[in-house]
Amino acid sequence: MKRLALTLAVLLPPLLVHGPLSAQRSVVDDAALREADPREWLSHGRDPAETYYSPLDQIDATNVDRLGLAWSWDIESYQGRLEATPLVSDGVLYGTGIWSVVFAVDARTGEEIWKWDPAIVQGGRANSGPSVCCGPVNRGPALYDGKVYAGLLDGRLVALDAETGNVVWVQQTTPVGGEYSVTMAPRIANGNVIIGNSGAEFGVRGYVTAYDAETGEEAWRTYTVPGNPALGFESPAMEFAAQTWQGNWWDLGGGGTVWDGMAFDPDANLFYIGTGNGAPWSREHRSDGVGDNLYLSSILALDADSGEIVWYYQTTPGDDWDYTAVQNIILADIAIDGQERQVLMQAPKNGFFYVLDRITGELLSAEAFGHVTWAYEVDMETGRPIEVPEARYDPTGVWLSPGPRGAHNWNPMSWNPDTGLVYLPGQHNQSFYRVNTEFEPVPGRFNLGTGGGGDRPNPPELPEPRGFLAAIDPVTRQELWRIPHAGSRNGGTMTTAGNLVFSATEEGVFYALDATTGERLWEMELAPGPATPITYELDGRQYVTILSGPGGDQGAGRVWTFALDADAPFPEE
Amino acid sequence: MKRLALTLAVLLPPLLVHGPLSAQRSVVDDAALREADPREWLSHGRDPAETYYSPLDQIDATNVDRLGLAWSWDIESYQGRLEATPLVSDGVLYGTGIWSVVFAVDARTGEEIWKWDPAIVQGGRANSGPSVCCGPVNRGPALYDGKVYAGLLDGRLVALDAETGNVVWVQQTTPVGGEYSVTMAPRIANGNVIIGNSGAEFGVRGYVTAYDAETGEEAWRTYTVPGNPALGFESPAMEFAAQTWQGNWWDLGGGGTVWDGMAFDPDANLFYIGTGNGAPWSREHRSDGVGDNLYLSSILALDADSGEIVWYYQTTPGDDWDYTAVQNIILADIAIDGQERQVLMQAPKNGFFYVLDRITGELLSAEAFGHVTWAYEVDMETGRPIEVPEARYDPTGVWLSPGPRGAHNWNPMSWNPDTGLVYLPGQHNQSFYRVNTEFEPVPGRFNLGTGGGGDRPNPPELPEPRGFLAAIDPVTRQELWRIPHAGSRNGGTMTTAGNLVFSATEEGVFYALDATTGERLWEMELAPGPATPITYELDGRQYVTILSGPGGDQGAGRVWTFALDADAPFPEE
Repeated sequence: MKRLALTLAVLLPPLLVHGPLSAQRSVVDDAALREADPREWLSHGRDPAETYYSPLDQIDATNVDRLGLAWSWDIESYQGRLEATPLVSDGVLYGTGIWSVVFAVDARTGEEIWKWDPAIVQGGRANSGPSVCCGPVNRGPALYDGKVYAGLLDGRLVALDAETGNVVWVQQTTPVGGEYSVTMAPRIANGNVIIGNSGAEFGVRGYVTAYDAETGEEAWRTYTVPGNPALGFESPAMEFAAQTWQGNWWDLGGGGTVWDGMAFDPDANLFYIGTGNGAPWSREHRSDGVGDNLYLSSILALDADSGEIVWYYQTTPGDDWDYTAVQNIILADIAIDGQERQVLMQAPKNGFFYVLDRITGELLSAEAFGHVTWAYEVDMETGRPIEVPEARYDPTGVWLSPGPRGAHNWNPMSWNPDTGLVYLPGQHNQSFYRVNTEFEPVPGRFNLGTGGGGDRPNPPELPEPRGFLAAIDPVTRQELWRIPHAGSRNGGTMTTAGNLVFSATEEGVFYALDATTGERLWEMELAPGPATPITYELDGRQYVTILSGPGGDQGAGRVWTFALDADAPFPEE
Repeated sequence: MKRLALTLAVLLPPLLVHGPLSAQRSVVDDAALREADPREWLSHGRDPAETYYSPLDQIDATNVDRLGLAWSWDIESYQGRLEATPLVSDGVLYGTGIWSVVFAVDARTGEEIWKWDPAIVQGGRANSGPSVCCGPVNRGPALYDGKVYAGLLDGRLVALDAETGNVVWVQQTTPVGGEYSVTMAPRIANGNVIIGNSGAEFGVRGYVTAYDAETGEEAWRTYTVPGNPALGFESPAMEFAAQTWQGNWWDLGGGGTVWDGMAFDPDANLFYIGTGNGAPWSREHRSDGVGDNLYLSSILALDADSGEIVWYYQTTPGDDWDYTAVQNIILADIAIDGQERQVLMQAPKNGFFYVLDRITGELLSAEAFGHVTWAYEVDMETGRPIEVPEARYDPTGVWLSPGPRGAHNWNPMSWNPDTGLVYLPGQHNQSFYRVNTEFEPVPGRFNLGTGGGGDRPNPPELPEPRGFLAAIDPVTRQELWRIPHAGSRNGGTMTTAGNLVFSATEEGVFYALDATTGERLWEMELAPGPATPITYELDGRQYVTILSGPGGDQGAGRVWTFALDADAPFPEE
């Protein structure tokens, strides 16, 4: 650069400016995500199959009682509910908190490296911020090639520099100022970062979008329900789906949002998503009371490069009950009836545990795991649930189980290939479903088409206690054991080659079970409102981490990390 | 907290957690802002009168040639134009960059303390981000009681913890996803933080809003132009103003945005704002070609506690030319015709330099400072400009000066009470104004109602060079001297008790003039695209700082700080 320096007689020599010497970082690329080095936790659920299983076994059923606190870190979070599964790469733990705060801490010590608050506008649509059905939660980040990705509650998808937290790119993935929100963890497939959205209670149309992880450029977008036919269909799949809808379903978007479970099979190049409930909830108000309303409450296999729908399986045809099928999807290779199958497993809100052939979409089994009164069973010939006669409620109304909170919700189940068991955190609840004859949509409010009215019969009795963790054998379709939980808002699950299952109760009691027997081997009370555990290894030492705590004025929201014989002081409020 | 620790036999004693010992910080309260300690630079323009004058005199006309670089800091900014005037408090310099990045650096060393990127969605309305007429600029932060405030391009107003950069509160001050944006620096008055907005080119309605600086709660909002009368008027002032409009002016908002100049007189408890151009530009399309269209292109005095309009002075009645009166407003107490007056001074785009009695709104003088062909002069009886006959252009069109870039723009003038001079960075330009008979508003696009059409006559000659810095005596109404600038996108000005004026040219030549004579005493070439200088004192040493540089791939955008005999190495690209 030329300088017109009148006062500096001597031109100073050029200064070579070096940045701080950065440690050599291992590259998180497609191969690394697929390989899923057990010492790290590189993607949501640890691997593209979202198993929540770790091959680490330093901590095992024989020594887990020596687990102690290694460190804890106060996120200084907003008040809300921590639901994030963190990631670990190269000694750094990446997580997300309430109102979409993203952070990086030293995975050895819990020392903060950076924290980024996107300053989401609170107050909902009236304040031009996002309306949220269920709190300003976030379920975790994604990692790829030196960047951390997070979906933000107001619909932004951001790529941050993993070392500094600096913004690399940002995209608005949804319309702003109202109905849409994003709470899910993104997932990487073939160099794209894929994200869906939430908001069906407010009246939106579901979709997932893939963005080039490097540049943020949109690669593809796949809608889950058809829009107004007069505007043209985006794909043959949408045209096909439209035949299963009636009336002006697009007026309230139709629903089918994708707000949690996604998995990726790199060999098949299939990307799996689960879709949500209808908008409004009542099919009466949504589709004149008829039709399957594809692809609500479905599992969809997408071509990972084009987003094209390759196959679908609809868990709840013509959803009337907020029975989302967005719960976490686990891919596994298991022998069913003696035949090796590439399967996909999901336990949606509707109370059935599904095993599908993940290449063809063929239904292999569907067993009730929860308290289910809306249907008798799933017909293995048709793949459809056999509904009880009163399931299609009317203006008189009916009590049905599960209710909209579902027999399973955001808290992930896990799959242990060693035990051959799925560990499923379930719950019992019910709802009085009634067609609201006075339904008038109001922008920015819950637009359900249900509820209202006067007297309702006393609710039927529900099984007690309300929460549980069930060990399910997907081959024999048997539940081997079940751990009761007093409350129903429990954390997710994680299982290891140490023959352990980790989870936590609503009250914040973090515990480890023998993965084979369900025997409780260790527990410690943290703070209420747990998310989902992970495990990783550094310097030959295995760690287990979970986020828990209410945040804000209600008490610290923290990252808690444990290791054998660790004895860090327990944080005080 | 109760712990169900099965494994920890001994309850550890409570750990007392201390935060890092923070240095004693002086409180920035209403008294401090008013007092405006010359060693700091606490508010936009240094004081509530926005004088851009500093009483510091260590650096003066006799020694300024010893000025050398003390430090520089690469903002690592996005590409764009740095327009921010930084602030200094307690040894920390706070600034804003392109795309509303906010930062804090050590004012002694330039070491970064924190940087916060709000991750504004780029790509304009089509991407649900803000549309911007003139780049993703920001003109600076505000400080109050341990917090830094910044208006963000997407209409958010954020309060950050001054020590950590953590988000304290955020408000959406505008509708989202389209026409509105925010580029201005907020100003504090009586514990409220006050902010306006931009976007009149896209069709919006201007207003300013005051938020409680502590909580973010809205205190008041004052619109600058009337809305649709059918929806009711917000105030008698709006009802009065509506009489000066015709047609369906509210369809495109009307304009009158407040995107830069604000000043505060705590004694009079009057808060001054300047208002912008009409939307669309053409009064023909906005108001059937008639009416003053209050309060476009006006200076408004608001009651600082209620926002009520106390008086107005309209610089350009019935604006047809994008003649905003949002340019910086300076308050001063000077003797006019031998009588001590509390005045307000502004040089709006329209090319006249106005002096008003700031208590009554009385026009004291209005002299052309630029190349003005749209009006002969301002009638001192009526306070109205006497327009040339062809000023109200038609579908044939006419060349007029100034053009929409104005004879003065965002780059602040300054006022030196010692010399009694205003230092005004002006420019010469013109535009072919023509009513576009095919005008059809398109959301998210420039909706001007002008332009289009075919042949146009050759433009008249403009004075050369295109830019200048003029020294104006507001008492005698004389211009004492003028410094020519080759380009017209020059930086703002700052003046000191050292009998100096600092400014910088479009090309990035930072210079100091003798404030009395205009003699150039020092200069140094930095990087193109300068903002506005400030000065402060630390440990007995006076510093001068300016932001300059294009950012992004075009070269670093930097904070440059100078002091006597400093000799920090000049940064290389």
